[in-house]
Amino acid sequence: MARKTKRVGIVGLGLIGGSLGLDLQASGWNVQGLVNRPATAERAMERQLVTEVSTDPACLADCNLVILALPIPVLLQPETSLVKALPKNAVITDVGSVKQPILEVWRELHPRFVASHPMTGTALAGVEAGIAGLFRGRPWIATPEPGTDASALSSVQSLATSLGSHWLTVSAAQHDQTVALISHMPILVSAALLRVVGNERDPKIRRLALILASSGFADTTRIGGGNPDLGVAVASSNRESLLRGLAAYRWSLEQLEDTVLRKNWPQLQIELQRTQAIRPRFLGSPDGINL
Amino acid sequence: MARKTKRVGIVGLGLIGGSLGLDLQASGWNVQGLVNRPATAERAMERQLVTEVSTDPACLADCNLVILALPIPVLLQPETSLVKALPKNAVITDVGSVKQPILEVWRELHPRFVASHPMTGTALAGVEAGIAGLFRGRPWIATPEPGTDASALSSVQSLATSLGSHWLTVSAAQHDQTVALISHMPILVSAALLRVVGNERDPKIRRLALILASSGFADTTRIGGGNPDLGVAVASSNRESLLRGLAAYRWSLEQLEDTVLRKNWPQLQIELQRTQAIRPRFLGSPDGINL
Repeated sequence: MARKTKRVGIVGLGLIGGSLGLDLQASGWNVQGLVNRPATAERAMERQLVTEVSTDPACLADCNLVILALPIPVLLQPETSLVKALPKNAVITDVGSVKQPILEVWRELHPRFVASHPMTGTALAGVEAGIAGLFRGRPWIATPEPGTDASALSSVQSLATSLGSHWLTVSAAQHDQTVALISHMPILVSAALLRVVGNERDPKIRRLALILASSGFADTTRIGGGNPDLGVAVASSNRESLLRGLAAYRWSLEQLEDTVLRKNWPQLQIELQRTQAIRPRFLGSPDGINL
Repeated sequence: MARKTKRVGIVGLGLIGGSLGLDLQASGWNVQGLVNRPATAERAMERQLVTEVSTDPACLADCNLVILALPIPVLLQPETSLVKALPKNAVITDVGSVKQPILEVWRELHPRFVASHPMTGTALAGVEAGIAGLFRGRPWIATPEPGTDASALSSVQSLATSLGSHWLTVSAAQHDQTVALISHMPILVSAALLRVVGNERDPKIRRLALILASSGFADTTRIGGGNPDLGVAVASSNRESLLRGLAAYRWSLEQLEDTVLRKNWPQLQIELQRTQAIRPRFLGSPDGINL
């Protein structure tokens, strides 16, 4: 029994899957990786991301817990061979950055599915991306519903906290609305900024912009210049919340623009003092914050 | 003569003035600082930002070149005592991040004024902010007009290149339109994002947003959470270009929103591939770029 409870499967060995493999092995778990391509399997072993690796879903047979570290579109339309290979008594969890649509698919596919989302940076991808300690001090959110298996939820919580993550549970709807505001909508806000400069008609200004852009522009456009697949995946799977976020954003920007139009500089000063005061609250550690 | 050509005055010893003082002393200049407050003068000497410092504008009498490292509102309404103390034969330049309004004021105030703008980060301010090497590898733009004194322009160019800056000349209008696009408009775009989350009505989502916000949100909101005085100064002094930039931005964001509304995911994919491809062009070194 002790041996069996220490055997975890990780499906997909990109940034999150690979990092999980490193940390879970360090915590004494036996880690079974499952990937699509033999070349990825080979590289994962070279990097020692997992204890064992295979391209055959049957490798998951002995796992007590399986983490689906797959992109959102794959989670929403999982391969039948994968679903069939998941042990019926195992705890299954995912790492997707939207929860409602994934929950709707997976609550039908496995009785012990727990929807979860470890929050990490997502700048890197692929089998080279995984690093140790990625989850330490970061939030790990689960979105249980009334039908969620309580002992399965508890198993995922133990795993998350053992890696140093801060465990939180919220409803899938709250999760998705929140990530729309702080993560998905900002992708389009940031991308729209790159488009403005890219679409500028005066070639002199376009070239000058390339030269004069400094760290402020680089920072503001970082997520808008990120992985297009991820952008499309979150926009299509979290569309309603994203559209609500964009509507609120448009209104927010129009209010600032209005102060400029009316030359209402005292009001703009108040608004910018407020945003200056708000921002540091987003940069703190999640330690000690309770919902 | 050799001694006199090596004497420079710096008015204001914040990030840019202080950094200039450090670099110019290292290049063998005798640097005379002028500040408002005795406490700042004392700290500037402790930090060895300048060779000498004073709170009396008369200290500039022997300077061949004077750099006005002052905030935009002060540049637009300079104290009479400062203007009177500037030697008539000295070269005068500024470091303001808008050029047209400053040029309109200063072309009347001094015959050898050269409008210029060394591009640097602006996250820090005050007498503690100055650091050595701030200008190395960064653009330094001058915006001469037909009436600009050619030898004065040449002196500022020599100073800028001696600090390792990349010298560029463009029209003040082109400069102001470009910085509106890559620097001033993004401040409001970024601030509007902080306002959306700050204004969210559901307290649970607001608190969850504080916990879940990661490095992407931190980066996208950095300039929107910056110095309110700077934001108001650039908005009020570069208002027309800023409003044009905001209008272009609104249109750009609406086009992205439209792909989400229409569920046109292939088009969103194309747009995000394009922004991903554009962004690295803004991160390169200005070396070898010619306008």
